[in-house]
Order: sequence, then structure tokens, then C-alpha cells
Amino acid sequence: MAHITFWFDFASTYSYLAAMRAAEVAAQRGVGVTWQPFLLGPIFGAQGWTDSPFNIYEAKGKYMWRDMARLADAEGIPFNRPETFPQNSLLAGRIACVGQDEGWIADFTRATYTAQFGNGQDISTAADLTLILTSLGLDAADVLARATSADGKLALRASTDAAIAAGVFGAPSFTTHDGELFWGSDRLAEAVDWAATHAV
Amino acid sequence: MAHITFWFDFASTYSYLAAMRAAEVAAQRGVGVTWQPFLLGPIFGAQGWTDSPFNIYEAKGKYMWRDMARLADAEGIPFNRPETFPQNSLLAGRIACVGQDEGWIADFTRATYTAQFGNGQDISTAADLTLILTSLGLDAADVLARATSADGKLALRASTDAAIAAGVFGAPSFTTHDGELFWGSDRLAEAVDWAATHAV
Repeated sequence: MAHITFWFDFASTYSYLAAMRAAEVAAQRGVGVTWQPFLLGPIFGAQGWTDSPFNIYEAKGKYMWRDMARLADAEGIPFNRPETFPQNSLLAGRIACVGQDEGWIADFTRATYTAQFGNGQDISTAADLTLILTSLGLDAADVLARATSADGKLALRASTDAAIAAGVFGAPSFTTHDGELFWGSDRLAEAVDWAATHAV
Repeated sequence: MAHITFWFDFASTYSYLAAMRAAEVAAQRGVGVTWQPFLLGPIFGAQGWTDSPFNIYEAKGKYMWRDMARLADAEGIPFNRPETFPQNSLLAGRIACVGQDEGWIADFTRATYTAQFGNGQDISTAADLTLILTSLGLDAADVLARATSADGKLALRASTDAAIAAGVFGAPSFTTHDGELFWGSDRLAEAVDWAATHAV
């Protein structure tokens, strides 16, 4: 089956748009999605950035917030800017890795992005994420314990290394089985199309 | 009549894609286009960049060249990477300002982008641009004299100041009469759609 890997960081605004549409857009073309959380921090850090480029570059940041509001409106999804940006996405990313193994990563990812950029809530702490996990009918204490175990930490680190190896430099990104990389929420359809038409 | 302003720098790869489609995409919606050359250099310089971000950030640059090849293929337009990137776009920009006054800016812009990114040619010198102007049936010596006059130089500088005032931070960008900004060749259709549906 043709498939794409969807690389996202929970701190990324545009990844919210992609997360809400990825499953549907891919399914319409018979393409599967591997949901792959990673951390932008080490990638940005290697470029000398210690903050989001949307905070470092004022005009780019002003544009992004306006663009997000327009795009969310066009997609018919809620958008509210959270007080803190970017939020620390480490724990959410580790939890998503647990969900990847257990089949609830898509639901967790959509719920976490909606909390953050749909409702403007904080998603950085264990308390914030416990609320989300509980709302999905999961045992939050158990999930948190596994997410913060040595294996849990390693999973997100390995994913970030794999993202770098795949040439990923921003989020969201999409990769295909034959090594094509697409960057940006507005390239989701092209990535899916590539996967569908170049399937082995 | 609804219209958009199309901001471009001749050094910008993605502006090539936008330049080849702007007139057609806009005309299909009854939207006019103001072709507006500007210089990214002062904007990038203010961010501390003394080279193209595609050269500064290796993964981003590698992606851009692959993405350009894919997109040009999808659009059915030629693509050949020039030896030098970015090229000095100062003289081409000044010439385009002359063409803006005289009605041949769209033809000159398409011809210059096609020479650079379609054929992989140099477009930075007076000799390079003389060839292009002559191919358009223009008096190259006369155009060059006006482009490099005090008024010619001022026109491009004023345009760059206007770009900054409009919030432009990259190319291509599109602005509408009501102050909306869209960044990237893949946002041309959205900019045109905004202008068409929000016309005064």
C-alpha cells in the first residue's frame, strides 16, 4: 500500500492544519499515513536558532499568525493563538511515540493540536496532557510513565535523528518511500499524490 | 477592477514559477496584476543574512532545488539550475522598473526568469540583459541608460521600502488592496481568489 510519513512537532502551528487533514486527504487516494513526531529544537539549534524563526524574524511571525487565521477559517477549523509560543513539545512528542506503538497516535495528535491552536490552551505539562489522554479514554498515568521511561525518551530522540537523516528542516514535512520530501501543510496533497502515483 | 501586487526579486527561484503563471491565473478570475520588482538583499541583511537562506541553511537549499525541479516539471516549464546562485538582481530589477512605466514589465520579467532558471543563464550583467531586451524588440542602450539613472535607481529603492512597509519578507509575495499578504508561489491562487472575492 502506498504511504507517506507525516513529520510533525507539537510546537508547529502549520502542523496543526496538516494533522487535521492528513488522514482524510491520504485515505481519499488510498494512501496510508505514518504519524511521526520529532523535535524541531535540535534542528533549529544546529542552525543557530534558539527560538522559533517566527519569533526571531518579526515580519515572518506577523505573517504566520495572520496566515494561520485565514487558513483555519478556509478549512473550517477553530483557531485561537495560545499565550505561549512556541510551547515545549517534548512531553507531547514522547507521548505520541507511545501512541504510535499502540495505535492511538492520530487521535492524540489531533486532540493535542486542537487544544493548543484550536482552543489556545497550554499543552506542555503533564497536567495538560493528562487531561487530553483521559479525554481519549487512556490511562494517563500509565502512558506518562512509559513516555518518560528511558525507552520513551529514546524513541523521540531516534525519530529526530531519522528526520535529520531524511533531510527534514521544518514542520510539517512529508516523505515518501522513494525519498521525496515535501515541506509545509500546503504540500500535503502533493505528497499524497506522489505516493499514490509512484507506489511500488 | 480587483487586482493584486506581485512582489518579486530576480534572484528568487520560486518567483520564476509565479512569474510564468501570474498573468494567466489572475486573468481567469478577472483580476489585474501590478508587477512589482524589489530587492530581497536589504530585507535579508536586516535579518543578519548576507547570503540566500538556501545557501546558509544546507537542508533547506537541497530541498529547494529538488522542489523547484518537481514543480517546474508539474507546470510543464523548463528548469535548469544556473551556475551562480543567487545572482545579482540589481540591474534586472532597475530595468523592470522602467518596464513598469512603459508596459513591457511582464514580458521582460518572464523572459529574464526563463533565461535564468529555464535555461540556466547568467542575468546579472548589462551584456546579459541587453540580449533579453533586444529579443523583446526594445532599445537596450536606451533602457539601460534610464535604468541606471538617478531616477531609475530611486524607483527600485522606493519599491523595496514599500515592500518592507507592506510586511514582505520573502519572494514571491502577493498583496491585495485591503492589506492581505500571501507569501510563496503556491499562494498565488489564494491571493487572486482573495482579491476577486473581496473587491471594493
